[in-house]
Amino acid sequence: MKKNVNILIEDIKDPIFLHSLSYEELEKLAAKIREKIIDTTSKNGGHLSSNLGVVELTMALHRNFDFRNDKLLFDVGHQCYTHKILTGRDISKLRNKEGVSGFIKMNESPYDIFEAGHSSTSLSAALAFAIDRDNKKENYNVVSLIGDASIANGVAFEALNNIPSSDHKVIIILNDNDMAISTPVGGLSKIFRHFQTSKGYRRFKKGFKKTFKFIKPIYNIAGNIKDWFKRHLIATNIFDSLGFIYIGVVDGHDFKALDKALNKAKKVDGPVIVHVRTTKGKGYKFAELDKTGYWHGVTPFNKETGAPLIAHPNQVSWSHLYSDFVLEKLKNDKKFYLIGVGTLKGSGLADAIKLYPDRVIDTGISEEHAFILASQLAHLGYHVCVSIYSTFMQRAFDQISHDIARIHSPITVLVDRAGLVGNDGDTHQGIYDSSFLFSTPYINVMMARTSNDAHYIFNQSFKNKEATFIRYPRTLTPKFKFDNTYKYSEYNLIKVSKENTCAIVSLGPLTDELTDELKNEDVTIFNPIKLKPLPEGLVTELSKYKNLVIYTPYETSNGFSQTLIEALVSKGVKSSIFVKAVPLTFVNHMSINEQLEEFNLSPKQVANFILKLLKK
Amino acid sequence: MKKNVNILIEDIKDPIFLHSLSYEELEKLAAKIREKIIDTTSKNGGHLSSNLGVVELTMALHRNFDFRNDKLLFDVGHQCYTHKILTGRDISKLRNKEGVSGFIKMNESPYDIFEAGHSSTSLSAALAFAIDRDNKKENYNVVSLIGDASIANGVAFEALNNIPSSDHKVIIILNDNDMAISTPVGGLSKIFRHFQTSKGYRRFKKGFKKTFKFIKPIYNIAGNIKDWFKRHLIATNIFDSLGFIYIGVVDGHDFKALDKALNKAKKVDGPVIVHVRTTKGKGYKFAELDKTGYWHGVTPFNKETGAPLIAHPNQVSWSHLYSDFVLEKLKNDKKFYLIGVGTLKGSGLADAIKLYPDRVIDTGISEEHAFILASQLAHLGYHVCVSIYSTFMQRAFDQISHDIARIHSPITVLVDRAGLVGNDGDTHQGIYDSSFLFSTPYINVMMARTSNDAHYIFNQSFKNKEATFIRYPRTLTPKFKFDNTYKYSEYNLIKVSKENTCAIVSLGPLTDELTDELKNEDVTIFNPIKLKPLPEGLVTELSKYKNLVIYTPYETSNGFSQTLIEALVSKGVKSSIFVKAVPLTFVNHMSINEQLEEFNLSPKQVANFILKLLKK
Repeated sequence: MKKNVNILIEDIKDPIFLHSLSYEELEKLAAKIREKIIDTTSKNGGHLSSNLGVVELTMALHRNFDFRNDKLLFDVGHQCYTHKILTGRDISKLRNKEGVSGFIKMNESPYDIFEAGHSSTSLSAALAFAIDRDNKKENYNVVSLIGDASIANGVAFEALNNIPSSDHKVIIILNDNDMAISTPVGGLSKIFRHFQTSKGYRRFKKGFKKTFKFIKPIYNIAGNIKDWFKRHLIATNIFDSLGFIYIGVVDGHDFKALDKALNKAKKVDGPVIVHVRTTKGKGYKFAELDKTGYWHGVTPFNKETGAPLIAHPNQVSWSHLYSDFVLEKLKNDKKFYLIGVGTLKGSGLADAIKLYPDRVIDTGISEEHAFILASQLAHLGYHVCVSIYSTFMQRAFDQISHDIARIHSPITVLVDRAGLVGNDGDTHQGIYDSSFLFSTPYINVMMARTSNDAHYIFNQSFKNKEATFIRYPRTLTPKFKFDNTYKYSEYNLIKVSKENTCAIVSLGPLTDELTDELKNEDVTIFNPIKLKPLPEGLVTELSKYKNLVIYTPYETSNGFSQTLIEALVSKGVKSSIFVKAVPLTFVNHMSINEQLEEFNLSPKQVANFILKLLKK
Repeated sequence: MKKNVNILIEDIKDPIFLHSLSYEELEKLAAKIREKIIDTTSKNGGHLSSNLGVVELTMALHRNFDFRNDKLLFDVGHQCYTHKILTGRDISKLRNKEGVSGFIKMNESPYDIFEAGHSSTSLSAALAFAIDRDNKKENYNVVSLIGDASIANGVAFEALNNIPSSDHKVIIILNDNDMAISTPVGGLSKIFRHFQTSKGYRRFKKGFKKTFKFIKPIYNIAGNIKDWFKRHLIATNIFDSLGFIYIGVVDGHDFKALDKALNKAKKVDGPVIVHVRTTKGKGYKFAELDKTGYWHGVTPFNKETGAPLIAHPNQVSWSHLYSDFVLEKLKNDKKFYLIGVGTLKGSGLADAIKLYPDRVIDTGISEEHAFILASQLAHLGYHVCVSIYSTFMQRAFDQISHDIARIHSPITVLVDRAGLVGNDGDTHQGIYDSSFLFSTPYINVMMARTSNDAHYIFNQSFKNKEATFIRYPRTLTPKFKFDNTYKYSEYNLIKVSKENTCAIVSLGPLTDELTDELKNEDVTIFNPIKLKPLPEGLVTELSKYKNLVIYTPYETSNGFSQTLIEALVSKGVKSSIFVKAVPLTFVNHMSINEQLEEFNLSPKQVANFILKLLKK
């Protein structure tokens, strides 16, 4: 390719041309890619800040390596938009059913060799590639790109601990952008921030002065040596002590510096970490100034003003509904603690940590630690709420069983994004938690249909003697208006039939739409709010009906449905039972409504099924 | 208490008397405690090496702190025997139904304030205690005792990362005994081993010489300063860099050194780690010499010879049965990898790592990392087997779903100790894995009844296109004799009835005992080996019977049972269905047979239930 040609993003087929570009051309291309990313996410939503932060870094990786042969692993994969562009993919329909995924997908491109969605897994996988390479005596580089929040997680640590003791070289690019999903937390992040002024270094300096002050003549010479120590001894720390060769800190927006560091990383013998400093949101003013993580994952927005495009004047997300209750509780209950795992912003709780820093603990991406900490605090008498997405709660299954349920720890868990989650795709669906919650002894599982249900069960949960998991979907609901006539019942009779032909047990807010679809039909509709243990009396009520339909569009059948069926069957109920639940599969990226329709689970489709049943 | 009194273990009511003992008295008491531990475990089985290693350390903790007020958290808790003795408990019936648990139990003593069984959780809990203390402006010490294998786990790391960024002091006692369950692995353990000759220190020394050689006159003075650096700068590494104050290395069998270090730990301001070096198995020659972890957990043995007391000439544990198959596979298949998580010895695979060090990877207690590594290796074409206990697999649920099932990674998992596990008690039961395996898409679950089944399904699993989980119990089975007439079937018809009154679907080896109990009854017995997906045709077969009994004594009903019931119901089967599964609860320490009887699940009890059913 000639020098200083004007590269059009649309013309890019593969990233090989990057090897021969001048720095000026690289800069120009970076600007275009950035524009494309801002434009696309402003229309489709997606991950904005993280992608803007790694434009130069991704280009530098493709320029210094040849990933037709070398291996590039994106940790999480939400920062892959530049990679998709450089490997010839059109991102215009990003995250839509007919477009590319917002994450790495092996079926999209031979350049996508590893996929994830949950964090901190790429280092373990990189080790596998390196083992394979060395077994076959091949000669290529295995490169993992991981963020500062992801590397501070336990899974990543286990790999960091294991890699140096194996004899296989991997190159870890630490993309340190000081922001992660929420705010970085923990000792490791402090190291990143205060790299030049670490405690060890400060102590070293102090001791150095003290020791040398009585041998004044040589103090000045020694002063110069100080720099050598600082460079050779202090600046390497946790990674070095685990056995990695450490290269850094590199400016992640400086192509020349990146070229130099990546070349060095290729040459060294043994596992290596390149510590790259990037600015999240780089090149888009709103995202650059963002300190809360607002621009991490976005819905469509106006590029000029930054304002969200989709407004729902009378509605609110379930996340924000519950976050209001949490803020209310933080205000009124001094024994109340909120614990987050790096997703407080995503669950509408960015304000909580600002307003109540003493009683809001964000552990970062540390689901396991967070649940044990919460359990012990609750055991000590505090009112503790953990806020987490369903899909990430999978990482804490052992803690939920061994550390919470087993000792009857009465925590409350807000399980956000339960059910189908739409465009994030197969790694993020919140449909599996229910099954493991139902197979764990001594815990409660609940799901509200209305905002008044939600308000009641949230506040009531702190009186429970055992843990309460409150599931809610990634959809909208009417704003909360306190109804002082509200009366809680473990299950509600939404609609009553004359004949006992058909009863429907329907979970959560979609019950209203189903009820609407069936308004002219002679069916009974039950809406249980308490799901585990099963509401008392429900099985007896249901036993009267000839046909039973269980509508659980927020989970697979392995949770509530199967438990209810076992209860019915063991009571000798002989009704015909039909389950309308999410099938046991992984669910690709498309809108939530498209996903429901794909599985014949939309209220209309289920209503049609019931109509046919009634006609039989 | 007077000086030099002869303390009898039986007289100990609480540990307060330790404060006033002389070093000589302490030594004498340590010897007695050691004798008691060897004697008890030789009769009851239990954790031997780890308990012998921490006799002095536990005494020193009780001597330097007052745990009526200070808090002592045992990580895992398997090293608590000295603590139980010192807090006035009789350990003679250790691990028996009527005796004390082998782990910390809050209902046993006010000195037991935190309990676990899975590793690496005590640091998160310690933080909760410290938060509570500081909230209430109280003034006591929170002390966590954790081993070198447990601290290298991801859960512990998340806490290590979080603690220093909070403003709460905890004291972590790192019991570094160089052995852990199997052999310590990973970069962290290398640090422990080569603490005095770490790379950083070696580099420092080299650089120091180089820098100073041209200023010869001061070289000697500087030489002395070297020690200061070594002490103040180099010997602290990962813990220091995370923000802990580091005290160590302390001889864990020297009361004087322990007194000094623990006193210092009390005085320092901020989170602190005391690095204590102990000898696992200290005082019992066989255990001291043990390099494989054989003496970590023991069955009853002859104190003099070390030989196990219980011999089963014609039988073998299911663990050893499968371990033979693994060794056979390691020998014959160069593409075969075995991955362990610190329990290879426990699963009879100590020899594997010795014989095939290149293709056996023990990640240590790193379940999450291990499963991702395994998944990626399998994805790259290797035949990969993970060996793990059911109870510890809970920690890898997210990986099994997100990193294995989702990408159809065809690994084989040997799920050891599935079902009721007996005397280890409520933290170790292997009854929950089945439920989460059944709710995970695209994986196979199998369970053999005979050793020929086991041989077949293990070898066949490497041909499967998706992951295969092979569950087996902590019991004995006849030794394997290859039967060349063996014919595999997804489910076997063990016994056929004349009338279609009752069919039993029975899992695993207990099927044989049940069949024996029912030999004179007109019932049909099916034994499915392939459990997920359900064997083709089984539902149709079962639909012919009036009564169906599902006998799954190796799991709760949330796995196989509920999935089978849903399948039956959705096919319109109207038979009466009865489930004999482990109830959804946690199960205390007692023998496996006692546990089965407790739940009316022994073959005899189930046979009696069926007899009554037939008489109806």
